[in-house]
Amino acid sequence: MRTPVFNRIALIGLGLIGSSIARGARESGAANEIVGTARSEKTRARVVELGILDQVMETAVEAVEGADLVVICVPVQTTGAIAEAIAPHLKKGAVVTDVGSVKQAVVRDVEPHIPDGCAFVAGHPVAGTEFSGPDAGFAELFHNRWTILTPSDKSTPEAVGHLTEFWKALGSNVEVMAPDHHDLVLAITSHIPHLIAYNIVGTVADLETDTRSEVIRYSASGFRDFTRIAASDPTMWRDIFLANRNAVLEMLGRFSEDLSTLQRAIRRGEGDKLFELFTRTRNIRRNIIEAGQETEEPDFGRGHPLASEND
Amino acid sequence: MRTPVFNRIALIGLGLIGSSIARGARESGAANEIVGTARSEKTRARVVELGILDQVMETAVEAVEGADLVVICVPVQTTGAIAEAIAPHLKKGAVVTDVGSVKQAVVRDVEPHIPDGCAFVAGHPVAGTEFSGPDAGFAELFHNRWTILTPSDKSTPEAVGHLTEFWKALGSNVEVMAPDHHDLVLAITSHIPHLIAYNIVGTVADLETDTRSEVIRYSASGFRDFTRIAASDPTMWRDIFLANRNAVLEMLGRFSEDLSTLQRAIRRGEGDKLFELFTRTRNIRRNIIEAGQETEEPDFGRGHPLASEND
Repeated sequence: MRTPVFNRIALIGLGLIGSSIARGARESGAANEIVGTARSEKTRARVVELGILDQVMETAVEAVEGADLVVICVPVQTTGAIAEAIAPHLKKGAVVTDVGSVKQAVVRDVEPHIPDGCAFVAGHPVAGTEFSGPDAGFAELFHNRWTILTPSDKSTPEAVGHLTEFWKALGSNVEVMAPDHHDLVLAITSHIPHLIAYNIVGTVADLETDTRSEVIRYSASGFRDFTRIAASDPTMWRDIFLANRNAVLEMLGRFSEDLSTLQRAIRRGEGDKLFELFTRTRNIRRNIIEAGQETEEPDFGRGHPLASEND
Repeated sequence: MRTPVFNRIALIGLGLIGSSIARGARESGAANEIVGTARSEKTRARVVELGILDQVMETAVEAVEGADLVVICVPVQTTGAIAEAIAPHLKKGAVVTDVGSVKQAVVRDVEPHIPDGCAFVAGHPVAGTEFSGPDAGFAELFHNRWTILTPSDKSTPEAVGHLTEFWKALGSNVEVMAPDHHDLVLAITSHIPHLIAYNIVGTVADLETDTRSEVIRYSASGFRDFTRIAASDPTMWRDIFLANRNAVLEMLGRFSEDLSTLQRAIRRGEGDKLFELFTRTRNIRRNIIEAGQETEEPDFGRGHPLASEND
């Protein structure tokens, strides 16, 4: 076990991310004591059963009492209200952070509530699966992934330093950037891909019943990969699109322009334009593999006999 | 070993699909003798090294000599020319088929060349990976996947029956439908997903250099899944979009309309509309899992420590 980075940490929200932090913090020894709470009684009861926290409280106010680090792990739209509620109960010197996928809106909603003597450093672990809830979490979720910290007026260099150490203890790499830059980068890496996936799955859902069942049958040909992305938590994603509206609309504009160009090339039968694009896109994937964010292992389709035999 | 469905089969084209058929046919005993050819000398030499065929010929004309089944496994744009070249050399009673992802164009291009006494049954094994070439193939590629046969004027019930038996021997399910219906269903399950994946990866490729390297770093947040799809063979996909232009443009129209609606909802901050769509799309995925075309196994990101430990 390592020296703990924080003595006591409080997790507000115990879904996929909150419960993964709990597991990772315990396994790594990054905290001495891990407490937390969730809004729903069912989730709290389940977390008690799972035994991944030292103590599960009924309210956020109780949970933050005496905590050195408070991690708000709720949909971004709710983060400001949580900050307001816990603010008067924060320990002197406590560091507050969050895990939301949008950062400008969170900084704007949370900062006004942070009392003097406490610090706020917005954060975003870029990791996840399409599953939700405390059973979906696991300690290794952050291994070799990136956590982005976006310091603002209420941040201190010490708080940024400790939080960096904490995330590194959980196996994550850490990068610091401005909130607006974060929102632009994530709009294209994450928000637009999700929007497009939701959109095409929605287009299919609107097809005539017969065709729809055929689409499901032949989904291994490409469509299936989109449905995984489009199975992510609806509340979380609604909040992300509302909170990152400007960057999403900006990137969606670029995407749509490019799609129109492609559509025109197909209509006109301009094969060389299509070939040029399809070749160029291969390099991007090569870069991702080289950056260690993917392997070259073929994905034969999960559930395929070979996948279970050879992996 | 089972009773062979065909005595001698000839594969024209030895890429991912052709070489997988060779392996599957040998492993299952679906053919007594497997011969074939590829346009490039390098591919032919590699297939000889791999030892997956009984004989590798220099030309398609030589390969089809005495073959009871000829499987054309080349990009759809080239299929007609191959059919024309081999036609005079086909054995009396031979069955010709293909594996292209578009069927109306293939039927149109191939049928005029099929001599009397031979049969043509267009086919499409709905299976694949993003890899190309003879090394990428494997016998289990078709297991529990679907092969669609689209009989036309030059098909006979016997030819359809034997070909069905052949694909089943390779582990595939078989479905029969009209060529135009195939093209519509595949436009939405396969062609549009690929087009969109190519498009968004292209949008990223056009970003400023700094932002692009960040996109690669944070690609695990959704973008990565698109790059796998967009790494597929460029020639094959150029041909598909040109050959299935009408169905692709029809489905692309629906997709774009839906995307505009979503864009408007984001601009206006209509969270309930977003939430409704994001919830509806979850059911489609559930149906795919129930249909056995996907498992519920979480995809933690290939190359993730947990993936290799637990799979």
